[in-house]
Amino acid sequence: MELDLGQDVVALTAALVDIESVSRNEAPIADAIEHALRELDHLEVTRLGNSLVARTHLARAERVVIAGHVDTVPLNANLPSRNDGTVLHGLGSCDMKGGVAVALKLAAGVPEPDRDVTYVFYECEEIEATANGLGKIAEARPDLLVAELAILMEPSDGVVEAGCQGTLRVEVVTRGERAHSARAWRGVNAIHRAADVLARLDDYEPRRPVIDGLEYHEGLNAVLIEGGVAANVLPDQCTVTVNYRFAPDRSEEDALAFVRAFFEGYEIELTDTSPGALPGLGLPAAKAFVDAVGGTVNPKFGWTDVARFSALGMAAVNYGPGDPMLAHKQEEHVPLAQLTGCEQTLRRWLGAP
Amino acid sequence: MELDLGQDVVALTAALVDIESVSRNEAPIADAIEHALRELDHLEVTRLGNSLVARTHLARAERVVIAGHVDTVPLNANLPSRNDGTVLHGLGSCDMKGGVAVALKLAAGVPEPDRDVTYVFYECEEIEATANGLGKIAEARPDLLVAELAILMEPSDGVVEAGCQGTLRVEVVTRGERAHSARAWRGVNAIHRAADVLARLDDYEPRRPVIDGLEYHEGLNAVLIEGGVAANVLPDQCTVTVNYRFAPDRSEEDALAFVRAFFEGYEIELTDTSPGALPGLGLPAAKAFVDAVGGTVNPKFGWTDVARFSALGMAAVNYGPGDPMLAHKQEEHVPLAQLTGCEQTLRRWLGAP
Repeated sequence: MELDLGQDVVALTAALVDIESVSRNEAPIADAIEHALRELDHLEVTRLGNSLVARTHLARAERVVIAGHVDTVPLNANLPSRNDGTVLHGLGSCDMKGGVAVALKLAAGVPEPDRDVTYVFYECEEIEATANGLGKIAEARPDLLVAELAILMEPSDGVVEAGCQGTLRVEVVTRGERAHSARAWRGVNAIHRAADVLARLDDYEPRRPVIDGLEYHEGLNAVLIEGGVAANVLPDQCTVTVNYRFAPDRSEEDALAFVRAFFEGYEIELTDTSPGALPGLGLPAAKAFVDAVGGTVNPKFGWTDVARFSALGMAAVNYGPGDPMLAHKQEEHVPLAQLTGCEQTLRRWLGAP
Repeated sequence: MELDLGQDVVALTAALVDIESVSRNEAPIADAIEHALRELDHLEVTRLGNSLVARTHLARAERVVIAGHVDTVPLNANLPSRNDGTVLHGLGSCDMKGGVAVALKLAAGVPEPDRDVTYVFYECEEIEATANGLGKIAEARPDLLVAELAILMEPSDGVVEAGCQGTLRVEVVTRGERAHSARAWRGVNAIHRAADVLARLDDYEPRRPVIDGLEYHEGLNAVLIEGGVAANVLPDQCTVTVNYRFAPDRSEEDALAFVRAFFEGYEIELTDTSPGALPGLGLPAAKAFVDAVGGTVNPKFGWTDVARFSALGMAAVNYGPGDPMLAHKQEEHVPLAQLTGCEQTLRRWLGAP
């Protein structure tokens, strides 16, 4: 598969969308990107699995990462791409081959950026965390990711979304004692005991801390509930799965301690946890980036791989074309104007004319 | 298969247990019972499907039904039967081939009872109500069931359990609005809305009405709960399945009206309903039966086919060997003394020496 980095960003996005790359099937798109990057003499290219890292070596005072994942969620009758003149439709157009196309255009079209750039195109973002290509690079070759700032080109409607909230899940379990429902007084109903768990959730008031001038907004929600043995049996167990989205001023440990205290008196099992990422807007590189893209910054509520960069000790922001609410939807699409707009903005920020 | 009604009730129970008759596989046991009954000149035998009705015609002042189902729940490594000298073990020993054996002993051994008797041995009690053999007889040949009193020989530990409570199930549904759990304020959590549904259940105080001197005991219980779309999505629906066991002084309509009022403000869907049966202990036939078996009567909390007799306008009680708590258990068994005790008691009640 040949990938022409000389074509415009819209055509390049369409070409990337048309290379199907559902998670674990990234080899063809990684091959195409690798081949195109290796044509560019100003970049040092490293491949790990189906992830690629391409770096300028201009001895600039500052180095930034520009990153995007190349995989998509499963097909949903939404390939090939279709350009209707205003937006480009198709699987991955929004999440996030538009952002990948912008990054590739910069890699090819800005050979002498005024900050050194590390481009990262990685696999397996849409599946379990252990498969994540960025995580694998961070583990195997952390040296490749050293920089002051990372721009993660996840869809953010072309506006900077700084940091991200953390997320954890616990199972809150209530227990009872089985009995025939015709003789209920011989047992204890575990589902009834969950009344108080849900009442606490219903009364929850979210924290909305302001960090670097951005107001985050936490959330504590039952996302699943299940209980019951049979239609004529008092249930002896009820499990409420609760998802806590926490602002990045809380560590995972703090977040879990909060949840434990919130559900005091109940059995809690932690099933899943990922840290947040502080916006880091005080850092000069981040400040300069925000100024370059027009000054508007929003907090990022959803969890993204910026947290991985944050864990490596660098500032990280989300910035890319496409409406994040369209990610993973059958009808996902990206406005053509956002593709060209993001490319222009980042070119300027890298000092290109 | 030959069935010797001359052997003692314990051996006969063992023989019946050893004819496997899981619901829908009652043909062999029905054949054996039919063959044995047709040898008895004092009985008129009618077969419907795998159910049998055998009647004396002695022009007595009173007619009673003595009934039992011949099917069992599925096998659970509990065949063949095993007699340990005190109890008989095996699938159906308790629920309810012990009772069927007693009835068959009476059918063969009391040719001239002082009340006319209609013996009913029926199929498919352990599965969906539409397959129930007693229900099919009531529909196709209600004339066969005309009597003043019915004795249903379900396990009741050899004590009369009068009437039965009704049962109905509703689904109580709460609704919300989906949203990503990282932006919870954009949606409405349907599981949180179920807090009040469970709180009402938790606060419920059961009615315990006294009817014919018996204290019934109602119950209103969540037996199943489910809600949730995915671990990162605010759920838009939560469904609580509630089972109401109601005393037989309430009709199905009254019971449903109570549940609707109890869950006022919520969507309710009725999924299942069966009426209770009044104890009917004021009826002379029932009174005489209670006196004959020693005077002790308990209310029946679980639903049984006595409700079908009650719906046909006759008094009906549960009376049979075996602990009802062992029904449907792998280790079900029946005490030998209860088998012989029940047989003796009923022989006496039928005027046999």
